[in-house]
Amino acid sequence: MAKQSMIVGKPALIVVDIQQDGAMPVEAAGIPRMDGFEQLVAGAERLVAAARQATIPVIFFQEAHRRSGVDFGRELDGTEGPHCIEGEEGTALWPTLLPQESDYFIAKRRYSCFFGTDLEILLKGLGVSTVVLIGGLTDVCIHYTFADAHQGDYYARVVEDCVLGSNETRHAASLDAMEYLQAGARRTSNEIISGFEEFGIKRSSSDSKNLMEVA
Amino acid sequence: MAKQSMIVGKPALIVVDIQQDGAMPVEAAGIPRMDGFEQLVAGAERLVAAARQATIPVIFFQEAHRRSGVDFGRELDGTEGPHCIEGEEGTALWPTLLPQESDYFIAKRRYSCFFGTDLEILLKGLGVSTVVLIGGLTDVCIHYTFADAHQGDYYARVVEDCVLGSNETRHAASLDAMEYLQAGARRTSNEIISGFEEFGIKRSSSDSKNLMEVA
Amino acid sequence: MAKQSMIVGKPALIVVDIQQDGAMPVEAAGIPRMDGFEQLVAGAERLVAAARQATIPVIFFQEAHRRSGVDFGRELDGTEGPHCIEGEEGTALWPTLLPQESDYFIAKRRYSCFFGTDLEILLKGLGVSTVVLIGGLTDVCIHYTFADAHQGDYYARVVEDCVLGSNETRHAASLDAMEYLQAGARRTSNEIISGFEEFGIKRSSSDSKNLMEVA
Amino acid sequence: MAKQSMIVGKPALIVVDIQQDGAMPVEAAGIPRMDGFEQLVAGAERLVAAARQATIPVIFFQEAHRRSGVDFGRELDGTEGPHCIEGEEGTALWPTLLPQESDYFIAKRRYSCFFGTDLEILLKGLGVSTVVLIGGLTDVCIHYTFADAHQGDYYARVVEDCVLGSNETRHAASLDAMEYLQAGARRTSNEIISGFEEFGIKRSSSDSKNLMEVA
Repeated sequence: MAKQSMIVGKPALIVVDIQQDGAMPVEAAGIPRMDGFEQLVAGAERLVAAARQATIPVIFFQEAHRRSGVDFGRELDGTEGPHCIEGEEGTALWPTLLPQESDYFIAKRRYSCFFGTDLEILLKGLGVSTVVLIGGLTDVCIHYTFADAHQGDYYARVVEDCVLGSNETRHAASLDAMEYLQAGARRTSNEIISGFEEFGIKRSSSDSKNLMEVA
Repeated sequence: MAKQSMIVGKPALIVVDIQQDGAMPVEAAGIPRMDGFEQLVAGAERLVAAARQATIPVIFFQEAHRRSGVDFGRELDGTEGPHCIEGEEGTALWPTLLPQESDYFIAKRRYSCFFGTDLEILLKGLGVSTVVLIGGLTDVCIHYTFADAHQGDYYARVVEDCVLGSNETRHAASLDAMEYLQAGARRTSNEIISGFEEFGIKRSSSDSKNLMEVA
Repeated sequence: MAKQSMIVGKPALIVVDIQQDGAMPVEAAGIPRMDGFEQLVAGAERLVAAARQATIPVIFFQEAHRRSGVDFGRELDGTEGPHCIEGEEGTALWPTLLPQESDYFIAKRRYSCFFGTDLEILLKGLGVSTVVLIGGLTDVCIHYTFADAHQGDYYARVVEDCVLGSNETRHAASLDAMEYLQAGARRTSNEIISGFEEFGIKRSSSDSKNLMEVA
Repeated sequence: MAKQSMIVGKPALIVVDIQQDGAMPVEAAGIPRMDGFEQLVAGAERLVAAARQATIPVIFFQEAHRRSGVDFGRELDGTEGPHCIEGEEGTALWPTLLPQESDYFIAKRRYSCFFGTDLEILLKGLGVSTVVLIGGLTDVCIHYTFADAHQGDYYARVVEDCVLGSNETRHAASLDAMEYLQAGARRTSNEIISGFEEFGIKRSSSDSKNLMEVA
């Protein structure tokens, strides 16, 4: 019932699975996807630039499965076909959204960025308490990463114009589900970019021991 | 793309958070809920009886938070008010759905039955590979438990006429999301009860070393 | 290489498995144990009192296994026989070391207090960054809890005169192993009690936003 | 109390952190180490060859920390200095012990191979139930990986002539601690190599549905 500030404590931008298969047809990608990949990329470029500008950590995720298929688990029992195979063209990160030296990179085998990865280690090391999610799919990797962040006591935000779902209906349902968990979870790119700028300014001018908030 | 049998290997029935607050108005329960709690209880009673009859493990979960509120994490930042406080009347399990000596009981602090609990220890000990979920909320504890089961390589099934959501729309969206992950995840009480019966018969007549399946 | 202060940030006292089987012979307890249980209890009583006095959280753990043995995992493949069975006399917490209303209680199925429990949820909720371990066995539950605390970025301390091992040699080896991980991990009861007192005083007189340390 | 067969179900060989720093002096490596690295490498080569010959999965681990030090957690609070920095010469895997196409590779940030990695995903995917550990340090990464394997219900074995500790005393103490957890945990290279051969033969001649054991 208590809506929190947009940014509480230190934020990180998490770029989830923006890979080359995003521009491929479903038969090649193995994953269904609603339209709008080009705009997603443009929005992600702006958000990544804003985060870097404010020295906010950017963490790039890549879903990747071993060629033998040994680590697919139950992922092929449903709607998705084989996808994100290591070494295939579609699995590579999108070329304008590659980690730079000051960024972070983590590969994952499952939907949630927390499952079987060192994300929690990294977030603790960085002192991050607010995670901002962009990428896809809204109703799969974004939604389940959000749920784990929420259950792990992080303030979680999803940039609603910078995520894509498997289709429009599921996209909308998952945005609604995230807002159910944390009021104010749904944010626009413009709001987040302003927030990142404000955060950068506040940090430069403040005693770092005080918990900062950006409404 | 590969729809699996309804039951693969050994199943367990997981009864999620059927507590007395289910019959209370939202102001008292702290959690919104669609209509149908009475039918949910009746369906759950049938499913629990069928599981016990076939000697299939039944695992009862109870969401419970310490009175001080210390373990709510971010759970009060969204739609839900304070809920499932230890020692309050509404937090008790529903009186017709209590664990018997041959059943299992686990308390949890978060939505997913896997988060901060010994469920994985228990499932490994029991040799369970298929989990059948009933209870609530469809779009919160059921959905996120399903997602974790899925990511943990379990065959997961949800009894669509024996789960309740925070409202009808979210309920339907989460059932759809679970079916996205595993084709055939959505099942009716009647299908599952028949499957439990068939499993019980097959087990009595078979070499336990063979992996059993019930379509 | 960098020895930290004894208490960094907010501490908690974790009382590990001080149960009635501690006073029983190995055949009844199922677990071997070096001498000194009486002194362990006396020391634990002092430490618990000091923590409560300074309003430092005290978390009591109890190892407990279901009667059917389903959750023993591989625990009976080695030196230990069946132990800590739910409902047996030896499994109960020691009567002078029971959680009071302001304390916390967690049951566990495995050696590490972090494995299959909600300890991480509780520590995050309490804002704890330093954990102080007492109880037993030094070379099993204490050692593996310490290792997990260490890997989870907590400052970990073991009260070397308030832990008991399966024998003297293993006790000494595990204390050495903990000191290997964090210099200054090994502490005496007197040091910790002084530290708790100092922490209580500093907190009353300070701005809670500053990270406190007690050397 | 019940000593199990050496191999129960399907085994995997886990090669822990055999990196170039193993041949460097402690000041360069950042980690103390007892003598015998050359023999360790020779033994590991034999074991890896035997596992590949029997089509037993080989999983190579590499400890690696980001250059900024952000993910060291508490690892520099004790005996170890900065170590296993990404991109440094000493961090590379030993040149004769590199994963081939049929092998597996996992990087890790912490001591236990299970902490913040996808090892559990991989072991489930491979259907492995017995893990055989070689590499180092006996008293750090080997010991804590063993403890997590044990707590996760795996049969765990350590090849006592193919692991190295931070010193002789801690090496011996950790071997003893692993034997405490699972009787028969300590094995020689020759025993394991014979067991791998026997496993390969049994598998070729048997119905894969039966649980295989090699004493």
